[in-house]
Amino acid sequence: MLLSILDLVGIAVFAASGALVGIAKRLDVFGVSLVGVTTGIGGGIVRDVLLGIHPPTSLQNWQNFSTALGACVVVLFFHPEIRRIRPGVLVLDAIGVGVFATGGAAIALSHGAGPLASTLIGATAAIGGGVIRDVLVNEMPLLLHRDLYAVPAILGAAIVTVGNAVNAPSVIALTTGVIVAAGLRLLALWRGWNLPIAPRITPQNE
Amino acid sequence: MLLSILDLVGIAVFAASGALVGIAKRLDVFGVSLVGVTTGIGGGIVRDVLLGIHPPTSLQNWQNFSTALGACVVVLFFHPEIRRIRPGVLVLDAIGVGVFATGGAAIALSHGAGPLASTLIGATAAIGGGVIRDVLVNEMPLLLHRDLYAVPAILGAAIVTVGNAVNAPSVIALTTGVIVAAGLRLLALWRGWNLPIAPRITPQNE
Amino acid sequence: MLLSILDLVGIAVFAASGALVGIAKRLDVFGVSLVGVTTGIGGGIVRDVLLGIHPPTSLQNWQNFSTALGACVVVLFFHPEIRRIRPGVLVLDAIGVGVFATGGAAIALSHGAGPLASTLIGATAAIGGGVIRDVLVNEMPLLLHRDLYAVPAILGAAIVTVGNAVNAPSVIALTTGVIVAAGLRLLALWRGWNLPIAPRITPQNE
Repeated sequence: MLLSILDLVGIAVFAASGALVGIAKRLDVFGVSLVGVTTGIGGGIVRDVLLGIHPPTSLQNWQNFSTALGACVVVLFFHPEIRRIRPGVLVLDAIGVGVFATGGAAIALSHGAGPLASTLIGATAAIGGGVIRDVLVNEMPLLLHRDLYAVPAILGAAIVTVGNAVNAPSVIALTTGVIVAAGLRLLALWRGWNLPIAPRITPQNE
Repeated sequence: MLLSILDLVGIAVFAASGALVGIAKRLDVFGVSLVGVTTGIGGGIVRDVLLGIHPPTSLQNWQNFSTALGACVVVLFFHPEIRRIRPGVLVLDAIGVGVFATGGAAIALSHGAGPLASTLIGATAAIGGGVIRDVLVNEMPLLLHRDLYAVPAILGAAIVTVGNAVNAPSVIALTTGVIVAAGLRLLALWRGWNLPIAPRITPQNE
Repeated sequence: MLLSILDLVGIAVFAASGALVGIAKRLDVFGVSLVGVTTGIGGGIVRDVLLGIHPPTSLQNWQNFSTALGACVVVLFFHPEIRRIRPGVLVLDAIGVGVFATGGAAIALSHGAGPLASTLIGATAAIGGGVIRDVLVNEMPLLLHRDLYAVPAILGAAIVTVGNAVNAPSVIALTTGVIVAAGLRLLALWRGWNLPIAPRITPQNE
């Protein structure tokens, strides 16, 4: 119950992030909504396509779609205000990453995925929407070169996978996964953590 | 019968639009054909992947593939002439949007999709090829920022979905959907309709 | 046995090509690994999604994933050296194209794909990773405008498909396909073969 509310929170926040990018790119209201909705439910759709869930839950389910669309409408009307409450949005976004990663891993496990697949598919559910958003607006995906974004997603999904392997109660595994993923994401944002970059090749060692 | 001819017309016109973009980008003949074929059959492939139709119809079916490839070959030889008959091509493109959206919704309904999924998957079938085309040639998808393109697709798919819900004869629902979608698309092109853009944030309200 | 070793070689080489592109784009170590792993196993994932193999083999299978990730780690540490042995890498890449195309076609045939689908899905398995790589780093896919890349893949997959149709022993069809595809690819690289480009429209024939 709490998880399905958090899931909708995640969809709303992801959709809002897509809509904000769309507004920054001067898209029309439909373009903003399309990028927003796709960002909100895209990760879950990719997860379902990989697992063979047809049609994908987020296309069948009015709740997910209306939540994403509603978030876009709110952003269209109130985007200056939303940019001002950015810290709050980032906390919700971190929770969204955690919920999508852990929930995605749990769904993958319940559809016969092995431990590697459930970790990767869970992480994909969490980061897929953002990648689709950036590809649609013709930018290199943010997660490739900024912020620690994917590592928390992988960690959250891995915790659920390990919890399943050791028969831990799923509520504990899910909660731990969300807290660790969201916490690590916020910590990384707060501390400005980034991963290292491979050394540039200087003329002498080429 | 008429619908399956119109379907091939849609594939040909979409493929031609992809091939024209490829030529404008100075791709080689293979690149032009790849972008063209992908644009022509890509929307249908995404539709089938979402519905769990394996392998996708357009990959199994010589008719769709040869139509798309044939259109690319024609474009490679006659692209200056085709650019000159652009108004005619736009009419065929509008019909293609209508046919793909309504046909996609009908196929989705026959594969157990609910009303939301059939509308969204139908619209995806109509606009998916163009999005893939633009992503492949590294442009922001046209439909995000120009022309009223996706709204007619959604409307066409929604008409078929509503028709199905009220048990209307499918030939009537499909025909109405095609006419409304194609008509709205042409009207938008003719009138230069665009959707509004969210107001730019001026320094004082930031 | 030989084929499954060659398959891992292909995954490693493709992953390395993705990782090298990621380093050139100054991504962090995670971004490099994500692009690399996706390039290495992405073609096979698309193949499995098209065929309805859920979850995709490369997500279930530790071998493929670890090979791809291992290749990325090697590239992160030794990328200047790897750039220096580029000719050797290109030979392995050509073999990878052949193995992915022929193996992809064989898997498609064993999953009920017809001749067109097995050729196209086999070729997609071979070129899909590179397309995903280039889309992720926001470049137009190389194969659209440079080098003869997709034609060898299509040819390799077609040879396996024809071999299947005439009941040729699969080991012969696979071997022939790999040799022809890899050979043509290397020949094209060596000779600098490119496909022709459609004539530019000059003002007078517009």
